Amino acid sequence: MGGDNAPNMVVDGVVLAQEHLPQVDFLLFGDEKQLAPLLDKNPRARDVCQIRHTEDVVSNDEKPGVALRSGRNSSMRLAINAVSDGEAAGIVSAGNTGALMAMAKFVLKTLPGIDRPAIAKNVPTLRGESIVLDLGANVVCDLDNLVQFAVMGEAYARKVFEIEQPSIGILNIGSEDVKGHEYLQQAAAFLQETNLPIQFHGFVEGDDITRGTVDVIVTDGFTGNIALKTAEGMAKMLGYFLNDALLSTTISRFGALLAKPALNKFRMRFDPRRYNGAMFLGLNDICIKSHGGTDALGFANALEVAVELISDNLNDVIREDLVHLDDVKLEVSSES
Amino acid sequence: MGGDNAPNMVVDGVVLAQEHLPQVDFLLFGDEKQLAPLLDKNPRARDVCQIRHTEDVVSNDEKPGVALRSGRNSSMRLAINAVSDGEAAGIVSAGNTGALMAMAKFVLKTLPGIDRPAIAKNVPTLRGESIVLDLGANVVCDLDNLVQFAVMGEAYARKVFEIEQPSIGILNIGSEDVKGHEYLQQAAAFLQETNLPIQFHGFVEGDDITRGTVDVIVTDGFTGNIALKTAEGMAKMLGYFLNDALLSTTISRFGALLAKPALNKFRMRFDPRRYNGAMFLGLNDICIKSHGGTDALGFANALEVAVELISDNLNDVIREDLVHLDDVKLEVSSES
Repeated sequence: MGGDNAPNMVVDGVVLAQEHLPQVDFLLFGDEKQLAPLLDKNPRARDVCQIRHTEDVVSNDEKPGVALRSGRNSSMRLAINAVSDGEAAGIVSAGNTGALMAMAKFVLKTLPGIDRPAIAKNVPTLRGESIVLDLGANVVCDLDNLVQFAVMGEAYARKVFEIEQPSIGILNIGSEDVKGHEYLQQAAAFLQETNLPIQFHGFVEGDDITRGTVDVIVTDGFTGNIALKTAEGMAKMLGYFLNDALLSTTISRFGALLAKPALNKFRMRFDPRRYNGAMFLGLNDICIKSHGGTDALGFANALEVAVELISDNLNDVIREDLVHLDDVKLEVSSES
Repeated sequence: MGGDNAPNMVVDGVVLAQEHLPQVDFLLFGDEKQLAPLLDKNPRARDVCQIRHTEDVVSNDEKPGVALRSGRNSSMRLAINAVSDGEAAGIVSAGNTGALMAMAKFVLKTLPGIDRPAIAKNVPTLRGESIVLDLGANVVCDLDNLVQFAVMGEAYARKVFEIEQPSIGILNIGSEDVKGHEYLQQAAAFLQETNLPIQFHGFVEGDDITRGTVDVIVTDGFTGNIALKTAEGMAKMLGYFLNDALLSTTISRFGALLAKPALNKFRMRFDPRRYNGAMFLGLNDICIKSHGGTDALGFANALEVAVELISDNLNDVIREDLVHLDDVKLEVSSES
């Protein structure tokens, strides 16, 4: 029931997604009165969907704490419970981010060795794709959080990007005199000096994200959120400027018409819908947050992200890597 | 002598700039053996330039503290001294940012009421232009720094953008549950509650920068630097993707040829050279940092920024506004 155009957009997203995911069944949590007619209109969705009725929803402006206490019968909470009960393999929601994180943390719990989950997202780069985390779950981070993000991001890049030795960078600023916050220095020193099986590149700057300098960009949730939204804003503005310029003369309009397939290819390459599906990494189960304002194509993408993480058994890989991290920490503490 | 292609790029920049700035004379600080032949080749530059010879330069990897102590005869330091001595009205340098800030702070001193200068820059937005500060001078900021940045940015927008009542926003993240760092909350509360003659909009998010939601975006130097560089990286990547798409087929290449003037107009609109010239606001004199990797067009733009701030008497406006700030602070402290 979450998102600006729910539940229509969700059902349409399922229809799109099931073309690529023929093996997947969907449980739809929400108001049967709204959902049943949508499934009736979409026979392809009806075949793969079951409705779990509830009238309660978490609204977009609900505080996470309030949602946690009073939303026990909400569609969001029941969907998370289904994952915890083993009835579903993962959850995708386009609803209230803070409430989803609070409920998912409460019900699914964090992986052993993870203090706080992170929000992670793939971003397009000149070399392909990179993963950035955290994007807003943790405004203030310490050494341990950042190291855990690095371990999770590395596991993701190895498993999902299929890179044998992914490179990790910590987002920082580049001036010679100022080397950024202390916790960044500490995390970098830890990743550099310990013998974790991780290829730590060092610090990267804002423009290294799109340059694809590293496969995994580690940052606190405040900085990551600002970077991501600023980049999205820039892309939106340039898309608008381009349109504006191409429509400015008759000849340019004709040129744009000829180049239309190429221009569409260009727009597709950084279409936010293609990158929809923020991953809550560090929970015992797979939980994906779709952008609330997305459409069916974007929601289908978020569903595909969930299925990918489930099929890749990402959490098992992260669990194994966290054991390494524990070993390294034991070494460090026995040395000191 | 600073910048990747100095001093040629500097002299070429002067030639370009003086077309728009017929009233301006330039003092070039640096190696006469390199500068004199360049002026001989550029009669138009020779007419408006005087060389002040020194062989010392501040290198790009010099630490600011070292540059400050041992660079007393460097071209950078002598140029700053000329401003302090009243011989020049402002300085533009494409050299080492940290050294320039350290020397400028030491020689020119901060304006009364300013604890720390900020690096500020204009950025293109969907509505026109906004100013963002700080972009990297101060990694850690407190309430006072942010309020001072707001006052300086407001004065700039009023004077240079010629907006009667510029709106001010503090860069933050938008989740309902997490409201960002404490110093951001404090600065917002101060700007909201005190009767400073400032139109405080509240918090803005990363994508509000290009949206042009406010005229002045206030942020700490760490966050501002990450945001700016991430946006620059995004613009560069999209420019590359666009090229790549347009060159992909014969028809799209022909279309791009027809749309070339429009595409050039598009590229011009966010060309980093047009926005070259970072302002060190909060010093007693005008000091502008050009990007080290820019070309003559970019350097000419940085020169024009300097002349604009000087002709607009920006520092006088800021000085007056700082008196308001002092009054407000006195009120606050007498109330408590």
